[in-house]
Amino acid sequence: MIEPTTLTVSGDRIRAVYEFSGDVADAEGRANALRVEQTIEFPADLVPDDDIQREIIGRIETLEVVGPDTVRVEVSYAVETTGFELPQLLNVLFGNSSLLPGVKLIDVALPSSLIDRLGGPRFGIAGLREMFDAPNRPLLATALKPMGSPPERFAEMAHELALGGVDMIKDDHSLANQPFAEYAARVRACSAAVRRANDQTGLNAVYMPSINAPQALLEERMRVALDAGAGGLLVLPGITGFDHMRDLANRSDVGVPIMGHPALLGGFVSSPIGGIAHGVLYGKWMRYAGADLSIFPNYGGRFSFSPEACTEIADACREPIDGVAPIFPSPGGGMTRDRIDEIVDFYGHDVALLIGGDLHRGENLEQTAAAFRAAIQ
Amino acid sequence: MIEPTTLTVSGDRIRAVYEFSGDVADAEGRANALRVEQTIEFPADLVPDDDIQREIIGRIETLEVVGPDTVRVEVSYAVETTGFELPQLLNVLFGNSSLLPGVKLIDVALPSSLIDRLGGPRFGIAGLREMFDAPNRPLLATALKPMGSPPERFAEMAHELALGGVDMIKDDHSLANQPFAEYAARVRACSAAVRRANDQTGLNAVYMPSINAPQALLEERMRVALDAGAGGLLVLPGITGFDHMRDLANRSDVGVPIMGHPALLGGFVSSPIGGIAHGVLYGKWMRYAGADLSIFPNYGGRFSFSPEACTEIADACREPIDGVAPIFPSPGGGMTRDRIDEIVDFYGHDVALLIGGDLHRGENLEQTAAAFRAAIQ
Repeated sequence: MIEPTTLTVSGDRIRAVYEFSGDVADAEGRANALRVEQTIEFPADLVPDDDIQREIIGRIETLEVVGPDTVRVEVSYAVETTGFELPQLLNVLFGNSSLLPGVKLIDVALPSSLIDRLGGPRFGIAGLREMFDAPNRPLLATALKPMGSPPERFAEMAHELALGGVDMIKDDHSLANQPFAEYAARVRACSAAVRRANDQTGLNAVYMPSINAPQALLEERMRVALDAGAGGLLVLPGITGFDHMRDLANRSDVGVPIMGHPALLGGFVSSPIGGIAHGVLYGKWMRYAGADLSIFPNYGGRFSFSPEACTEIADACREPIDGVAPIFPSPGGGMTRDRIDEIVDFYGHDVALLIGGDLHRGENLEQTAAAFRAAIQ
Repeated sequence: MIEPTTLTVSGDRIRAVYEFSGDVADAEGRANALRVEQTIEFPADLVPDDDIQREIIGRIETLEVVGPDTVRVEVSYAVETTGFELPQLLNVLFGNSSLLPGVKLIDVALPSSLIDRLGGPRFGIAGLREMFDAPNRPLLATALKPMGSPPERFAEMAHELALGGVDMIKDDHSLANQPFAEYAARVRACSAAVRRANDQTGLNAVYMPSINAPQALLEERMRVALDAGAGGLLVLPGITGFDHMRDLANRSDVGVPIMGHPALLGGFVSSPIGGIAHGVLYGKWMRYAGADLSIFPNYGGRFSFSPEACTEIADACREPIDGVAPIFPSPGGGMTRDRIDEIVDFYGHDVALLIGGDLHRGENLEQTAAAFRAAIQ
């Protein structure tokens, strides 16, 4: 038994909802194990009846059998367990429980004391609508591809896409610093090309280079992008970390919109019996971590997300959360122009349509981009 | 159709083996989609017969039906697609394919040109054996718990554990910068306590604080640890990114052993039909990314890993790979002293046993730690 501990906590609590699959008779034991696992990870019987027992170990708020093999458990945690930092928040929510069988994180709610510290998205839906002078319509996004092309070709594509009226022209998420199109050369060429197009059109298209860099080069790549006049950044939080994105979103010396890309994150939702719910991962986590747009694979493309999962993501991106701006869901992944009406019907107008390769099917990129734009007007 | 592209590549290739679950009749189509998805992510029919087709798009090396619903596909990628950077390597291996249904990454092999650039573990098994003057025995590791304890109590625990002969005393992975034990105070107190114990014992125990910090504080927390004399670092690559760990492992101004912790990574292997194989994620990826020890939940504890999965991890940590030091598998997760013989029988001597809470069951920590040490001598 360790010594009794006296602590001061605010009383503010994080709420997390988990779903257990398996024998419902075990649910209470599993819930008790989980609330310990996510906090002290220490034999609870060795902790006296003190403030660690009362305040640090998570609390089971509700436990409900919702199906023959499914139990829903709401656990709350003292906000202080996170140290008010996003990496430790993710740890509390799903660090070790990601390793437990049949545990799925299906919802999260944060107290305002933590939300204020995280900062959240800088622009969100309202900010991007103002930036693109688009009070109502869906936004348009596309990607520069294919890898292997030289910087000048990417710049030419970016120019044509911006002339055609696409709002956001991002790097394909696989463009890094390959020898075929080194980062600085590509970013400078594409930024200049989009600026030139904006001078011609009077629009405000932005180029968003991908900042999927080694740790020691993250700062330099971001700086090269901003110095070149890139109007936004593409971030891959599954690879460079959610707090990398949050940091960029909150720095006054960055100040451009951020698009969150789901690379590598699929593993978290690949299991029917565990992982993180689509709405939490691609919706709330992206949002808490400062993304202004969250890219995910649309239903009916070459990926596996169901319409229900996509609705869950879109809802989590857009539902009101005090202190966290709503953001654009950005369905992509093999989308084609002939599906625009259907996609807009499905998501409504608060959506950023991401169409990549399909814009290359046609006479030229400016024309297909203009048709893309016309289709949503 | 885009313009034909001429490229120069070295011919060095990354080899990745994937397993598809589902109808084997679709396998060739899925393999063709995958080799495009992981590279150009662009309609292959719009690329002419050029060097992008030949060199950038992945190549199917072998395709073999290995079960009624399982196909194994080896795909190779030009090393240049990674730009010789770890974040983009992870993207090529499993970025978008993490979002595809029923695709599991089961093996990886890198060419020496990439291995040389990644750097790998600084110490590995040989370096740690020298550091701890332990030519043959298993190494011993433990964690400072529970969260909520003040710095002085953690320091007292660290002192006793080091007196008892534990080699590595790490922070619990959930210790960050909580108000109960702020990072700098905790790290200074624990580093000093372990140094004091080493002066008494003549041993070289190390304290390894957890560097699970916000992006903007990663450098400062690392510096505080080294300035305080911490002898190693605990890194959570699932949260702060694999390249954060690789960077620390390779910097000459760091130069201490690194323990990789699996927090949040469980999602990647939670699915029986997708994700990343245990050996790849907790073995090879940890190793490529510079961990000297890879922590994972042992079979038979409170987590779900099977003995087979644990063997796969241990093998991947220790098997010869040219240019990448073998590292210690470090099974933990509710391990108890009464299982030491069994665990050493299972893993052999090249293992770092991680026992946490169970050392608190006894008269005092120094005694239980000494018994832990005696058990493996």
